Amino acid sequence: MKKALVTGGAGFLGSHLCKRLLDDGYEVTAIDNLYTGSEENIAPLASQPNFTFLQHDITRPFEGAYDEIYNLACPASPVHYQASPVETTLTCVTGFLNVLENARAAGSKVLHASTSEIYGDPLVHPQVETYRGNVNTIGIRSCYDEGKRCAETLASDFRRVYGVDVRMVRIFNTYGPNMHPCDGRVVSNFIMQALKGEDITVYGDGSQTRSFQYCDDLIDAMRLYMELPREQIDSFFAKKGIETPVINTGNPGEYTISQLVTETLRLIPDSPSKTVYRPLPSDDPKRRKPDITLAKELLGWEPRVPLAEGLAKTIEYFRNRVVKNG
Amino acid sequence: MKKALVTGGAGFLGSHLCKRLLDDGYEVTAIDNLYTGSEENIAPLASQPNFTFLQHDITRPFEGAYDEIYNLACPASPVHYQASPVETTLTCVTGFLNVLENARAAGSKVLHASTSEIYGDPLVHPQVETYRGNVNTIGIRSCYDEGKRCAETLASDFRRVYGVDVRMVRIFNTYGPNMHPCDGRVVSNFIMQALKGEDITVYGDGSQTRSFQYCDDLIDAMRLYMELPREQIDSFFAKKGIETPVINTGNPGEYTISQLVTETLRLIPDSPSKTVYRPLPSDDPKRRKPDITLAKELLGWEPRVPLAEGLAKTIEYFRNRVVKNG
Repeated sequence: MKKALVTGGAGFLGSHLCKRLLDDGYEVTAIDNLYTGSEENIAPLASQPNFTFLQHDITRPFEGAYDEIYNLACPASPVHYQASPVETTLTCVTGFLNVLENARAAGSKVLHASTSEIYGDPLVHPQVETYRGNVNTIGIRSCYDEGKRCAETLASDFRRVYGVDVRMVRIFNTYGPNMHPCDGRVVSNFIMQALKGEDITVYGDGSQTRSFQYCDDLIDAMRLYMELPREQIDSFFAKKGIETPVINTGNPGEYTISQLVTETLRLIPDSPSKTVYRPLPSDDPKRRKPDITLAKELLGWEPRVPLAEGLAKTIEYFRNRVVKNG
Repeated sequence: MKKALVTGGAGFLGSHLCKRLLDDGYEVTAIDNLYTGSEENIAPLASQPNFTFLQHDITRPFEGAYDEIYNLACPASPVHYQASPVETTLTCVTGFLNVLENARAAGSKVLHASTSEIYGDPLVHPQVETYRGNVNTIGIRSCYDEGKRCAETLASDFRRVYGVDVRMVRIFNTYGPNMHPCDGRVVSNFIMQALKGEDITVYGDGSQTRSFQYCDDLIDAMRLYMELPREQIDSFFAKKGIETPVINTGNPGEYTISQLVTETLRLIPDSPSKTVYRPLPSDDPKRRKPDITLAKELLGWEPRVPLAEGLAKTIEYFRNRVVKNG
């Protein structure tokens, strides 16, 4: 039985990935410091004999030998990472260093969750993997953006110097059940506000666009990517002239924030909420949309869950878990 | 007597700064792991009672309380940092974290040596401080470039969150005595090759440009910057809408690599060297030139040493120290 480690395993995406790995027959260990993750997310997995949860902060080294490590640990929402910016940077860099050292010692494959935030407020649209980004090094979002950029560098050098088999996904905006209800992201914000009948707050004029990837689509991509033989990956990226295996994963469907409000309210027809507008925060990206050509070619993957379907499932989750629990 | 710490104090720039601080009446401690620094650089200071050298790697915490810390530790030449890329990134991030934690505990002022490398291969010319750069996260230069970007982020967050008085200079190409003779930089390369009568190797066609700042000019800027009252700095950058005090320091005079060859050979008239051309390495920036408006306005500073004068002094150094020593 193959052993997998998921850092950030009690978080939104980590918990979905743990479930999928258990379904796929893995022995799964989830590590999480529970800063933004929650035991509630993994409660449905706790009774499974092949599942272990360790409350631990990856900025400190950890033991164990795994066949596969999925590095998902890091607060990913501005409201969380800006509350502890130094710790966020260290989770990205020191935390990932500990993961890579563990993988190096055990010969593990590593799938690292990078992010579309490494593109910053992009000047190239849609974003391709060779785009170098437009990131402010000294702003309030930098702790996450630069930490994640630096993590990509560490991954690349562990691969180049020590031969560690690291693959990276740059995850674009993803939503679904188990999202943190107070993470300040548009999908959870709008749903929570609509369910509670509060004003729906739009930052800026609502014309900025986002792509919305349903969590199951991302988990599909991650699993497909990890299953590929290293040689196939190496030869694919060598042909593309890209130094390290990194692919965008996201839904290229582009929606304005205003369209998301409309869709959310359509699916919660009894909501009395009205929309109000607030100033755009510093460094907020105005447009972001993945080019997923590489993921399509390499994995034969593309997102399958339409926004209306994913949004309905997410609303159902928030209705059952959050609103009823008060 | 004020106490100053210089990390990387046995390096090229660190050794000049230590000397200046001693001349200015400081008690000076130099920390260096001697990876690229050398005791020879600080040998002339060793006899001074106010000078202490500690061989230590800043990626491990260190003790002591200083009024001022100058963070210069990091291999800065591709030939060195690419030989140990992971350690380079960690010197930038973990090393600087230790410096910042030390400063936070002691209430020290910090001057951090950032670099023009954070602009990568710039698409804006000349580079202004608000330019976000064009840096590859996964290439062979990334360990330095992204490590240094991440260090700027740490500095900004230590300032924002913990109130640490950090000031940053983005240092453009600087040369002078005490440069490492084998650092692979154009100035030292060309001088060494010309003195030894070897072929002068130009990477690319020689049309790429660089700016060349003489070390004394940079040390002037660093000392002026550190002497400014915090309030004056805060108000200056607030008016500019820049979140953290960061200024370019470099010489805006722009020379092609071919012009540098010509100037070097003019100053070493007895050299039999010929010029040969080699392919440009991956990620090598094609043009770089500082916009020093902010430094001029804030410090009343601009470089004073012309290339011919600085180059003559550097040639003299290499002739006496390196060539005669074999």
